[in-house]
Amino acid sequence: MYGADLKLPGMIYGKILRSPHAHARIRSIDTSAAEALPGVKAVMTSADLPEQKFDYIGPERVAVNFWHVTRNIMAREKVLYEGHAVAAVAAASASIAEQAISLIKVDYEVLPHVIDVDEAMAPDAPVLIEDMITRGVEPRPTRPSNISKRLEFAIGDVEAGFKQADVVIEKQFKTAAVHQGYIEPHATVAKYEPDGQCEIWSSSQGHFTIRALTAQVIGARLSDIRVTPAEIGGGFGGKTVTYLEPVAAVLSRKSGLPVRVQMTREEVFRASGPTSGASMWVKIGVRKDGTITAMDGVFKFQAGAWPGSPVMNGCLCAFAPYDVPNQRSVGYDVVSNRPKAAAYRAPGSPISAFAVESVLDMCARAIGMDPLEIRHRNGCRIGSPTIAGPKHAHAGYLETVEALMRHPGYTAKLGPNQGRGVASGYWFNAGGESSATIQVNADGTVLVATGSPDIGGSRASMAIMAAETLGVDYKDVRAIVADTASVGYTHVTGGSRVTFATGMAVVNASKTVVKDLIKRAALIWGVDEDGVVWEDGHARPAGSNVGDFPPLSLKAIAAKAAATGGPITASHGVTAGGQAPGFSTQFCDVEVDPETGKVTILRFVAAQDVGRAIHPSYVEGQIQGGVTQGIGWALNEEYIYTPQGLLDNPGFLDYRCPVASDLPMIEAVLVEVPNPAHPYGAKGVGEVNICPPMAAIANAIAAATGKRLTELPMSPPRVLAALSES
Amino acid sequence: MYGADLKLPGMIYGKILRSPHAHARIRSIDTSAAEALPGVKAVMTSADLPEQKFDYIGPERVAVNFWHVTRNIMAREKVLYEGHAVAAVAAASASIAEQAISLIKVDYEVLPHVIDVDEAMAPDAPVLIEDMITRGVEPRPTRPSNISKRLEFAIGDVEAGFKQADVVIEKQFKTAAVHQGYIEPHATVAKYEPDGQCEIWSSSQGHFTIRALTAQVIGARLSDIRVTPAEIGGGFGGKTVTYLEPVAAVLSRKSGLPVRVQMTREEVFRASGPTSGASMWVKIGVRKDGTITAMDGVFKFQAGAWPGSPVMNGCLCAFAPYDVPNQRSVGYDVVSNRPKAAAYRAPGSPISAFAVESVLDMCARAIGMDPLEIRHRNGCRIGSPTIAGPKHAHAGYLETVEALMRHPGYTAKLGPNQGRGVASGYWFNAGGESSATIQVNADGTVLVATGSPDIGGSRASMAIMAAETLGVDYKDVRAIVADTASVGYTHVTGGSRVTFATGMAVVNASKTVVKDLIKRAALIWGVDEDGVVWEDGHARPAGSNVGDFPPLSLKAIAAKAAATGGPITASHGVTAGGQAPGFSTQFCDVEVDPETGKVTILRFVAAQDVGRAIHPSYVEGQIQGGVTQGIGWALNEEYIYTPQGLLDNPGFLDYRCPVASDLPMIEAVLVEVPNPAHPYGAKGVGEVNICPPMAAIANAIAAATGKRLTELPMSPPRVLAALSES
Repeated sequence: MYGADLKLPGMIYGKILRSPHAHARIRSIDTSAAEALPGVKAVMTSADLPEQKFDYIGPERVAVNFWHVTRNIMAREKVLYEGHAVAAVAAASASIAEQAISLIKVDYEVLPHVIDVDEAMAPDAPVLIEDMITRGVEPRPTRPSNISKRLEFAIGDVEAGFKQADVVIEKQFKTAAVHQGYIEPHATVAKYEPDGQCEIWSSSQGHFTIRALTAQVIGARLSDIRVTPAEIGGGFGGKTVTYLEPVAAVLSRKSGLPVRVQMTREEVFRASGPTSGASMWVKIGVRKDGTITAMDGVFKFQAGAWPGSPVMNGCLCAFAPYDVPNQRSVGYDVVSNRPKAAAYRAPGSPISAFAVESVLDMCARAIGMDPLEIRHRNGCRIGSPTIAGPKHAHAGYLETVEALMRHPGYTAKLGPNQGRGVASGYWFNAGGESSATIQVNADGTVLVATGSPDIGGSRASMAIMAAETLGVDYKDVRAIVADTASVGYTHVTGGSRVTFATGMAVVNASKTVVKDLIKRAALIWGVDEDGVVWEDGHARPAGSNVGDFPPLSLKAIAAKAAATGGPITASHGVTAGGQAPGFSTQFCDVEVDPETGKVTILRFVAAQDVGRAIHPSYVEGQIQGGVTQGIGWALNEEYIYTPQGLLDNPGFLDYRCPVASDLPMIEAVLVEVPNPAHPYGAKGVGEVNICPPMAAIANAIAAATGKRLTELPMSPPRVLAALSES
Repeated sequence: MYGADLKLPGMIYGKILRSPHAHARIRSIDTSAAEALPGVKAVMTSADLPEQKFDYIGPERVAVNFWHVTRNIMAREKVLYEGHAVAAVAAASASIAEQAISLIKVDYEVLPHVIDVDEAMAPDAPVLIEDMITRGVEPRPTRPSNISKRLEFAIGDVEAGFKQADVVIEKQFKTAAVHQGYIEPHATVAKYEPDGQCEIWSSSQGHFTIRALTAQVIGARLSDIRVTPAEIGGGFGGKTVTYLEPVAAVLSRKSGLPVRVQMTREEVFRASGPTSGASMWVKIGVRKDGTITAMDGVFKFQAGAWPGSPVMNGCLCAFAPYDVPNQRSVGYDVVSNRPKAAAYRAPGSPISAFAVESVLDMCARAIGMDPLEIRHRNGCRIGSPTIAGPKHAHAGYLETVEALMRHPGYTAKLGPNQGRGVASGYWFNAGGESSATIQVNADGTVLVATGSPDIGGSRASMAIMAAETLGVDYKDVRAIVADTASVGYTHVTGGSRVTFATGMAVVNASKTVVKDLIKRAALIWGVDEDGVVWEDGHARPAGSNVGDFPPLSLKAIAAKAAATGGPITASHGVTAGGQAPGFSTQFCDVEVDPETGKVTILRFVAAQDVGRAIHPSYVEGQIQGGVTQGIGWALNEEYIYTPQGLLDNPGFLDYRCPVASDLPMIEAVLVEVPNPAHPYGAKGVGEVNICPPMAAIANAIAAATGKRLTELPMSPPRVLAALSES
C-alpha cells in the first residue's frame, strides 16, 4: 500500500497551484473565485502557515532552517522556481480541485532569473534571497549574494605538496542536477480531527521526520500528529523532506475532511529535490613513483532555491579514500532558480568524486601507472589523516582495491573503441537514533517493529539479526515498520544508517528479551537466574544446575508467558555511534560508438567494503542499484532549462533514466571487513556504490577514445563533440 | 475509521451465503455457477478451512473449542441455525457477489429444529450435535442430548438452611435472548500476500484475539497475521469473537486481492452472538429478622448452536452479593437452533440476577422489610464465603447499598400506578495479560500505545495514568491503540479489565520511563543515579546533591535524549492479578399504564463501587450505558422466532432497543472503594451496572401493580396480561 493507495470515507482531493515563473514577486493572491466554486472545501496559501523565526534552525533532530522550509512548502513574498507552490485547494474531486486552482489569480512581478551555478555566483546575478550574506567569508561581505556560505577544509600545506610533485594536473568539471528518479511520486493523506489530533499516511524515508517537519510548519506538537508509513516506491534521499504533508494537514484542518494530495510526475520533477549540479576545479600532484603529494579542489554546488546543497559532504568525501598529507577543499553553497536540492544517495560525494577520480586517472596515465595501483599505493588505512579532522578509524578501502586487482575481468582484453576505467568512492555512513520493539508471540513466533521505513530490504535484515540474537529460525521472525505513536523515535532511512543503527536497537531489544526468557526459565525451574544460560534458542541449566532440567525452547517459554509475568515485550532506543564509513572501488569497460557517440557499458564490477553482509543478496541489490543510478547520472540524466528558466524535460520520456537494456549484469564484489562497533559487524552499504561510476565511465571513455570528458552527462552529442575535437 | 471504512486499491467484496433453515443436513454444495459468473474472484466453503482436532480447546489465550469455531464460521456437515454461514464469494462488486451467492446450490435435508431452552432439554428434542454427551453428570449419560454440561456449585447445606427460614419463596423465570445491539455491524478487510503474510483490518474488542482465532482457523502462525484495529462502533462483548476475518483472509488468499466483508444488520441479528435466553428457578429462605438462611437456584442457559453459554458466570454471580452460609446453584448449558451466544456485558450475571433479585424482593416484601435493608443486612464483606471457593477479598457492596439509603430520591413519594424497585448485581471483573509502550517525544509530549481497543474511553484513562505517573500534564499525553505487530500481547477489551490491567501495564511502563529519566538526569549532572529523585515531572537533586542543580523537567531531558543514550522508550507486559469485583445497587421508579401495559421509567439511580474513578465522566457514561441496556432487556428486547425456527425481527425496527425518549436521566452514584492491588485503586466499571436493572424494574412493577412479572421482556402485552390476571 503506497502513499496514494489509501482511501478514506469522505476523503477529498488536494491540488497545488504552482508558479509558472522561474523568479517573481507575488504582489497578491486572489482565491475568491476558487473558494466560490461548488465542490471546493478548502483553499490555503502561506497565510495559513505560521511564520517561522528568521534563520530558525529546528530542534536537534531536524536541523533545518524553517524560515526556508515553510517558504518552500508554500511561497510567501516570492516564487523562486518554476513549480514553486503558491496555493492549494481541496475539493470533492481531483478535477474540481484542478479547475479551482486555475481560478486562483496571482499577480506576479516577474524578476530576472539565474539557473547555472557559475552564473548565480557572478556579482551581477539576480539575487534570490535579498538579504542573504555569505557566511564563512572574512571580512563579512556587505552585499547580499546567492552564495549562502563558503567552506574550507585543509590539512598539511597544499602549495608545498604540489612543489614535491613530478606531475601536477588540474581540471574544471561540471555536473548536472539529476533527480533521484523514484517510481512513486510523493503522496499523502491527512486527517485532522476537531480535537487537534492529526493522522497522516504517507510514503517517506522517515515518518518521524515527516512528523517533526509537519508539526513545526503547521504549528502543532509532536504528539498531535501520528504518521503511519506507507510502503515506499523509492526514495534514494529524496523522501527525507516534506512537500505535501503540511499542505494536506492544513487543508484537512480547514475542511474537516480527510485530504489526499499527490504529485504528478511533472510536479515531482519541477518541485521536489534533485541533487545539486556543480562546477568544480580539482588539482592533484603526484610523484613518478605514484605517491600523491597534494590534492586541492574547489566545489561549487547548486542548492536550488534555498541554501543547503550537500557541498560539505562533497568537500569532506572528495579526497577521503587517500592517505595524502596535503589536502584542501573549498566549497560554495549557491542558490539559483531551481527546486531546492534534496539528498540523493551519498549526497555530495559522487559529485566531487567525479572530478577527483577523473584527475587521479589522468595522473596515473601521466606517470604510466595502473589506476588501481596508484589508488592502492595511496589508499587510506586506519590512522590516515582526513580533512574532516579525525583520523580514519576503519579499514576497508585497500581491500576493495585488492579485490579488483584479483578480479579476472580486470585483465581481460578489450576490443576496438573499448576502454576500461577505474574509480573509487567514500561515504561516511550514518548512525544516530533508532528504536525497536520486540514481541514474542504465544506460538513462539517473534515480531520486530522498528521506525525505519524499508527502502532496501531492512525488514529482512532486522529479522535476521533478531533471529540470530534470539537463536530462533529466521522464518519465525516477522519484521514490520511501526507508526510514530507505536515505536520509539527513529531517524530517517538514509545515510546508510538503518542496518547499522536500527539493527543495533533490534539486537539490544533482542538481548533484553533473552534476559527475560532466562528469568522466566529460572522461574519455571525454580532456580536462580544465574543458573540459566541462553544458547541456540534454548534456556539451559548452568552452573550447579547442569543436567537437572531439559532445555526450554523460546517457544516453550512463550507458551507459558501469561503464567510467568505476562507478555514478553521489550523496547530499546539507541543513539548508535561507531559507524564505519563505506568504501567502493569499481571498474567498467565501455565501448564508444564513433559514429553516434553512444557509450555502451560492457562490464561493470563494483567492489565494496560492506562490513558484514547481513543479507548478502540485498547488499548486492544495493550495489547494483547505486551503480545503475551512477550510470544514468554519467551518461544521460540532466535537468534541461529553457532560456526562461523553465524545466524543459519534466518526465521520464525526456529525462532519461537507464533502463534494463542499457545495462550489463552489474557484478557486485562483497568485501567483508566487519565493523567492530556493531554486534554483527554491520556497516551501511546503500550509498557509496553511487560515488565511483561517473568517473569510472569517464576514465573508460578516455581510455577508449583518448578524450577526457569533464561535463556530465556524457551523452551522445557531448561524446560526439569531444570525438570531433582535434 | 470504522471496520468498513478502509478501501484498498484492487479491493473486492465478499458476501456470505447463509442457511435459510433452522436445522438441516448439507448433502452437497455446488459452487460452479458462482465460480463461472464474470467478476467472481474467489469462492470458498468449509473445505477451504483445515479441520480442527475434535474437542480441541485452543491455546491458553483463546480457550475455545476450535472444532466448533470453524463450523460456526463455515458450516460443514449441518447448518444449525437460520443465517449459519455456508459458503462465501468475493467479487469485483458487492452486487456481483450477491448475485454469485444466489447461484450457489446447496442440497439441504431439512431436520426438525428446537429453539426454546426447556424444549431443547426434553428427551425427545431434535439433537443438534449428534455425538454430544452431557458433561458433569454422573454416571455419564449414554444418549446424546442438547445439554453440553451440568454445573453445580454449593456451600453449606441448602436444605438445612431452608429449614431455618421463616419464609421460603421459590419461583420460575424466563429471559429472552437479547442482542448487544452495537451500532456498527461486523466488518473487516483482509489482504493476503503471496509470501503468506496477511494484514487484517477490523473492528473488534481484541485484535490479538482476532489474530489468534483467525490464525488457528485458517492454519497460519501468529506472526503471519497482522491485525490493525479499526475504531469500534460498539461491542459490549459481541466483538470478542470472529465471524468474518477468517472468511476474508481465505477469500483474499484465493483471489490474491484485498477483500472486504461486512455484515448487514440482518446478518448481525441472524448470525452474530446475542446473549443467552434462560429458564430459571430460584428459592430463597429468610428469617423474620431479614437474615437469609439459604439460596438455591437452577439456571438453564441457551448457548445457541454450539456449547458455551455464560451459565457458569450466572451460577457464580447469582448469590455473590450476599453473605449466606448455605448456597447452591446448578447450571445447564444447552444448545438449540439459534446463533451461538456471545459475551454481553457481564455475561450471565444479569440473567441469574433477574431471578435472584426478584425472589429476594418477594422475601423482603413477605417479612415487611425494606429491600435495601435486607440487602444491607446480608451484604457480603471481606471474608464472606462464596460458592466459587475463595472468600470475598474486597469491600464495596455494602457501600453501594448505603449510598442508596442516603439518596433523597429513595424516600421520595410516588403517585398512583407508580412503584419503586431495588436490585443489586455482582461481576468478577477480569485482569490478565496486557501490554503498553511509552515514547517520550523530543518536545516533551508523551505517547502511550496499548493493545486494548477503546470501547469506553480507555485511551483517556491510559493518558491520565501515564501523566500521573510521569508527573506531566494530561494534555501532553496522547494514547493510541497499536496493531498486533507493534505492541505486546493484550487480551480483549472485555471483563471490565482494561483500566485495571492495561492501566497497570501503562503505569509500569511509565515507571520504567521515570527510571530512565533519572538515569539521564544523573548523566547530565554527572552524579550517581541515587542522587536524583523524580517529583512532579522533574528530576531533582537528592541526598548530598540537594541544591546543587536546578530541577530538570521531562521536557528538558527529552530534548537531550539523543545525547544521553537515544530515544526514550519503554515497553511493559503484565499478567494483572488482584482484580477487584464490581458491585452495583440500583433503584428505579416506574409508572405502569393500566390501559396499555406500558412501563415508563421515571427515575433511575445506580450506585456502583468503581474503585477509584480514573476518568469520572467516562465512568458515569459506563453506568448510564449499562443501565440503558438493562432497561431495554427488561422491557422490550427479544429474539422472536417463527414456528419454522426463523428469526422474525432481525432489524432495529422490530427488535426494539431503548431510544432517548424512553429514558430518564440515569443518575450514576460513584462509590469509591479503591482497589489496593492497583497503583491508582482502579477496578473495572463497565459491566456490573447491567446486572440489576431487570429485577429492579420487575420489582418496581410489582410495587406499582401488585403483579410479579417473571418473564422478560416485560413488554406492554405481557404487563397487560399480568394486570388482567385475577
